[in-house]
Amino acid sequence: MTRRRETGVLRRVEVALGERSYPVEIGTGTLAAIGPRVVERTGARRAIVVTVPPVGRRYAAPVLRSLREAGVSASRIDVPDGDASKSLRQTAKLYQALLAHGADRTSALVALGGGVVGDLTGFAAATFLRGIPFVQVPTTLLAMVDASVGGKTGVNLPEGKNLVGAFHQPRLVAIDTDTLRSLPPRELSAGFAEIVKHAAIWDAELFAQLEREADALRALDPEVLIPVIERNVRIKAEVVSRDEREAGLRMLLNFGHTIAHALEAMYGYRNLLHGEAVAIGMVYAAGRSEALGLAPDGTAQRLRCLCERFDLPTEAPPRPRSAYLSALRVDKKKRGSTIGFVALDGIGRARVVPLTPAEVAAGLPRTARSSGSTGGRRRGARAGGSGGRR
Amino acid sequence: MTRRRETGVLRRVEVALGERSYPVEIGTGTLAAIGPRVVERTGARRAIVVTVPPVGRRYAAPVLRSLREAGVSASRIDVPDGDASKSLRQTAKLYQALLAHGADRTSALVALGGGVVGDLTGFAAATFLRGIPFVQVPTTLLAMVDASVGGKTGVNLPEGKNLVGAFHQPRLVAIDTDTLRSLPPRELSAGFAEIVKHAAIWDAELFAQLEREADALRALDPEVLIPVIERNVRIKAEVVSRDEREAGLRMLLNFGHTIAHALEAMYGYRNLLHGEAVAIGMVYAAGRSEALGLAPDGTAQRLRCLCERFDLPTEAPPRPRSAYLSALRVDKKKRGSTIGFVALDGIGRARVVPLTPAEVAAGLPRTARSSGSTGGRRRGARAGGSGGRR
Repeated sequence: MTRRRETGVLRRVEVALGERSYPVEIGTGTLAAIGPRVVERTGARRAIVVTVPPVGRRYAAPVLRSLREAGVSASRIDVPDGDASKSLRQTAKLYQALLAHGADRTSALVALGGGVVGDLTGFAAATFLRGIPFVQVPTTLLAMVDASVGGKTGVNLPEGKNLVGAFHQPRLVAIDTDTLRSLPPRELSAGFAEIVKHAAIWDAELFAQLEREADALRALDPEVLIPVIERNVRIKAEVVSRDEREAGLRMLLNFGHTIAHALEAMYGYRNLLHGEAVAIGMVYAAGRSEALGLAPDGTAQRLRCLCERFDLPTEAPPRPRSAYLSALRVDKKKRGSTIGFVALDGIGRARVVPLTPAEVAAGLPRTARSSGSTGGRRRGARAGGSGGRR
Repeated sequence: MTRRRETGVLRRVEVALGERSYPVEIGTGTLAAIGPRVVERTGARRAIVVTVPPVGRRYAAPVLRSLREAGVSASRIDVPDGDASKSLRQTAKLYQALLAHGADRTSALVALGGGVVGDLTGFAAATFLRGIPFVQVPTTLLAMVDASVGGKTGVNLPEGKNLVGAFHQPRLVAIDTDTLRSLPPRELSAGFAEIVKHAAIWDAELFAQLEREADALRALDPEVLIPVIERNVRIKAEVVSRDEREAGLRMLLNFGHTIAHALEAMYGYRNLLHGEAVAIGMVYAAGRSEALGLAPDGTAQRLRCLCERFDLPTEAPPRPRSAYLSALRVDKKKRGSTIGFVALDGIGRARVVPLTPAEVAAGLPRTARSSGSTGGRRRGARAGGSGGRR
């Protein structure tokens, strides 16, 4: 018999959005105690857990048990693993499954998984019966620090990512860092990329802490990890809530994303995890910030070293600059002829500068050949392998 | 050469929803002057008019011309006519068409047509790029007085109507009563059913006015019709905005809908227009209100007479009560074992009473045969013909 573990180091961040405010609760062992919190926060009589098979096999049982003990009927719907599930086709199938499970206005959805499950489930919750409550239980580090705040939900179209969606705030985000123990190392690293990003654009002190405690963080020491996740949730919540007053502030969260999107378009989403692409994009953007005279020398190098501590790639792979340029030109965030490029003023401070695709690409190697001479590369984009995406 | 007509009898209702407030503007000849209003209200650089072929043929040209004269690029997307277009499949096609037309965050959609076009276009606007602005240009009387306020958008699933959708407020509703001149008479009557409904639940004075001026209204005399549409928009706006404080007030708008939904389920949506089903449902609900001791005698008779002035059916068609009961039991608005049935306290006042399906159905003819003896029927549900739905 296994003894049920106690809930540990519980931290709580309130995301302040008026009537749509909600808490993000971070701890260990929280999955097995989620039922009463779902009831309190949603008032639902029925909870439907949406997950993917590898996550569901490990973690659905304690969630369902806790929900039933809290007096709600609970059932589970599995969607296929992988980014392809963020589609209209899968959304339609999910609606059908919800009806088959008896979902109505007194039901809540529980998204148990990573970003794909959260985005798809959130979009279904936003649109089923014109909106029912949902709870996020992110099981990847990336989803914990990124997708859990902001209310963005959505799916992809064949023409591009996240072209369809809605803003729909969860009623509760319950983070159990125990779930990270089964996360593939590449996925864990990709999550740390977003943590580095938050520090780089917003919080020099957090950046220094990451430099000091990278090893404890990689070892998932809850005493270090939980406060760092909490800090990241606070940063994202602050940026998102201030964005209603300071238009465009949220754009800072796109730091590293201009090149990242181009890389993803060129390499395919299966060969490069989002966080890996963002790490490359951040180091590149920091280098451009120095070249533009915005950030002090050494900024990019400091960022590069921290990314490498988390085993993240930091170098734009050798491809002809023309390939990058055409990928940049289809970036959906472009406005007219310029791109809102997020540059650093230094570690902990960022701004948006309008650049043409050519100005963005000016720091890239000119041809495939010339990049061979670049020193200091730890690891470029991988050529294959999906890294056990969940 | 035709001279462009002047805009006439322009009335304006502000729907007060905080930051999401918007005006409903009602007049004649407003289509040809819509461009500057779309620009002012949406700030869009591109406007995409979504319509169905029979409406587009008649009315798209002046709208597109006015938009272009106002300096925005404008194009038109046709979706197939009919309720079948309120589907996920058609939504997916519309997203593709929007991308093909170059839609981005600086674009607005203009829904030119009846309720189907408004619901589908509104849902696409709510979800494309997580929400872009839209403008409603309703061309049926039903859409003018009903769909133009409330922000409900959505599509059907094979399992039921409006199971998927979103609340998304338009930036502007522009009503041009000239478009009603080409509306098939049955559709016009169906629109008057909603007007009668608003009067019955909320406004005894309007009810008396409808009794006095039914002929002028049916002749589409703008001097009478435009103020009546304005009054209806005000009633719906008041109910919708007060519903945020008085939970359930909006349910009063379901007056007549319990039986209407059952009729639609039994007869198919093509054989019975929604307004026709509502007329039958209202007269029935008024009769039940009298039987329950809520409404004074004669209430149902007064309602019946007014519906007949607008050439609406008023009698539940002869079907076994068991058929009604099973249709009532699948009504998606049912809660547990009772239905929130909207009853009248008299003309102009309504309330919600919880009734079981059997209590709702108690006033129906017991069998198909027994109904043959009912007198005073003007017209039952029609057996066929789609009535040129638009």
